Amino acid sequence: MKTINILGATGSVGTSTLDLVEREPDRFRVRALTANCDVDRLAAAAIRTGAELAVVADATCLPALRDALAGTGTRAAGGRQAVCEAARGADWTMGAIVGCAGLGPVMAAIEDGGTVVLANKEPLVSAGEVILAAAARSGATLLPADSEHNAIFQCLEMAHPERVRRIILTASGGPFRDWSTDAMRAVTPAQAVAHPNWSMGAKISVDSATMMNKGLELIEAARLFPVPADRIEIVLHRQSVIHSMVDYVDGSMLAQLGPSDMRVPIAHTLAWPDRMTTPMEPLDLVRIGRLDFEEADPVRFPALRLAREALDAGGARPAILNAANEIAVAAFLANRIGFLEIAAIVADTLDRFDPPPPGTLEDVLDVDAEARRLAEDLIQGSGSRVEDCVV
Amino acid sequence: MKTINILGATGSVGTSTLDLVEREPDRFRVRALTANCDVDRLAAAAIRTGAELAVVADATCLPALRDALAGTGTRAAGGRQAVCEAARGADWTMGAIVGCAGLGPVMAAIEDGGTVVLANKEPLVSAGEVILAAAARSGATLLPADSEHNAIFQCLEMAHPERVRRIILTASGGPFRDWSTDAMRAVTPAQAVAHPNWSMGAKISVDSATMMNKGLELIEAARLFPVPADRIEIVLHRQSVIHSMVDYVDGSMLAQLGPSDMRVPIAHTLAWPDRMTTPMEPLDLVRIGRLDFEEADPVRFPALRLAREALDAGGARPAILNAANEIAVAAFLANRIGFLEIAAIVADTLDRFDPPPPGTLEDVLDVDAEARRLAEDLIQGSGSRVEDCVV
Repeated sequence: MKTINILGATGSVGTSTLDLVEREPDRFRVRALTANCDVDRLAAAAIRTGAELAVVADATCLPALRDALAGTGTRAAGGRQAVCEAARGADWTMGAIVGCAGLGPVMAAIEDGGTVVLANKEPLVSAGEVILAAAARSGATLLPADSEHNAIFQCLEMAHPERVRRIILTASGGPFRDWSTDAMRAVTPAQAVAHPNWSMGAKISVDSATMMNKGLELIEAARLFPVPADRIEIVLHRQSVIHSMVDYVDGSMLAQLGPSDMRVPIAHTLAWPDRMTTPMEPLDLVRIGRLDFEEADPVRFPALRLAREALDAGGARPAILNAANEIAVAAFLANRIGFLEIAAIVADTLDRFDPPPPGTLEDVLDVDAEARRLAEDLIQGSGSRVEDCVV
Repeated sequence: MKTINILGATGSVGTSTLDLVEREPDRFRVRALTANCDVDRLAAAAIRTGAELAVVADATCLPALRDALAGTGTRAAGGRQAVCEAARGADWTMGAIVGCAGLGPVMAAIEDGGTVVLANKEPLVSAGEVILAAAARSGATLLPADSEHNAIFQCLEMAHPERVRRIILTASGGPFRDWSTDAMRAVTPAQAVAHPNWSMGAKISVDSATMMNKGLELIEAARLFPVPADRIEIVLHRQSVIHSMVDYVDGSMLAQLGPSDMRVPIAHTLAWPDRMTTPMEPLDLVRIGRLDFEEADPVRFPALRLAREALDAGGARPAILNAANEIAVAAFLANRIGFLEIAAIVADTLDRFDPPPPGTLEDVLDVDAEARRLAEDLIQGSGSRVEDCVV
């Protein structure tokens, strides 16, 4: 019996995780569920699963949660500190809180040991070294729920990382994979958000359209797996059926294939090292017919080059890349800048800001805040509208 | 340091194995090499590797071998019994003797314990249960060097076979995959031997053209892996880049990809559970461009249906299938029957012969001999030209 925490239980990943956990009540017992303020869904899930604890990060929503859980066995709590407390005490914790609000709770889960599943790439990109050091101290096991990194994890023989010749991250290429740079100039937010293979939130869909998503995944892969960064390659694979591959020195390449449904990698992390049944239709390769592979183009998609350079330079560079990108994508979605300016803003921010490597989570957050401020300056010529990351 | 025996050291698989073993002299030490009568190549390999023992199965070739090895540290021996003795005493034994002459030596290696690599499918098809029982008694580890089965082995989590939903054997479809039955009627041996993807011997090339090769692999897979036969599927994949796949109940599918070079699976068995470097070029999926998947057609390729039926019925049926097929393929290569008659002869032999399940290796050999006799009868109306399997 595994005890389960789900941080961010009402979002897309959290809901998928709950769907799987509820299928095997003899195997999983829910300890804590958290949400920002979606009291209805949080309380319903807590009652269905018999969770011990339900937490809203926004403390103003706590009275409503208390009402909803009155007379049930589930305890209610509220506030950021309560979310961090909810992150402890389970065998398995899903870290699915979007953005930097998830950083503190994920760190709390990692410090507690146990298995921690990372559903967002930002923590490892921005605070990779800090997170890995904490996991090394506590003995926590980090598992990736991102489909690409989960695929690599499934294909990687961890006993012999020196036998890996290459990790090959596959990229769908997003909706503009066949567009010229000129054609991309006039892209609208609505076009950028319409991903051909995956149904995702607006931010990550835009990242997929610029291919910054793949750049962030490149950095994440370099953090997660004991393979040098120059052995991680990106290949365009428009069908998104092969989620990633590991190529060994003997000429064997292992690949993980699956439907474009987050429940597949989540189920893998839930049951690992065993497996569990999910309601997925078996992949029908005959119906799919063909899988294509093409070069990923760092000229049309400069985000690929920026991410590779940030990874190679290390230190604060990945955190700056990530923060500037968040600001630039938000500005694009608000129709404040054009599609091609997203990468340009990121590049300019990286050019103007070169702090020393962050040693602590606080250092990372300082870098993050300053990069956001700079990116915003570049967008509007003055430093208002900054969204700081407060943990 | 692993000690190595290579049974059939001068053939294609044996030569590939030697090529790999000689690359890592600090990791592998050759104990015994055997051949039928190719004294020059056998002696040269024995001298190069400093083998303890070199054996010719054909005892009339022993004097020449003695001469060739005079003054070296390698002992010479000859005869079938000496081959069986050579099969013992190593950590790792490659069983690469073609046809049923390899059955006895492979059984000797299995009875000795250690790791035994099966490079031919015939032993497991004809004598599967007998071989598996011997391995269970001695504790020998059986590893497959066939590219498909080696792929499955790499993708299979042996701790949880009940989590496998399907094993998917990929088939190139051979040179006639796009031909109608009518067009196949006039196929010549030269056409049938020209395989599009692999360079192989005549018998196995014809088996690939009829798809009996995939049928035999289906039976072999059912013997090797703890997965029910009805969960093993065949999919046409003309590029032969994905060598096979394992589909799990959670929706994840693992695949092994590689170049069409036997050294890749052989290297995997040599180094397993570690890996070793081979001189293969990395697989370039961008250059390959696309991978296709189609239905395998048991109407145009009746061998697929015959093999499935033989597997389902069990007992002596797979041995009869294999023996009748060998005779029919030999008759086709000798221009005695047409291409479509190969499967017809196999079907007729199966119709006319239904002995009880063989319990011992001797029983298997009796079934094999009688099936060959019957198949030959069907080909020429009288029972001469029979090639019995004498171990």
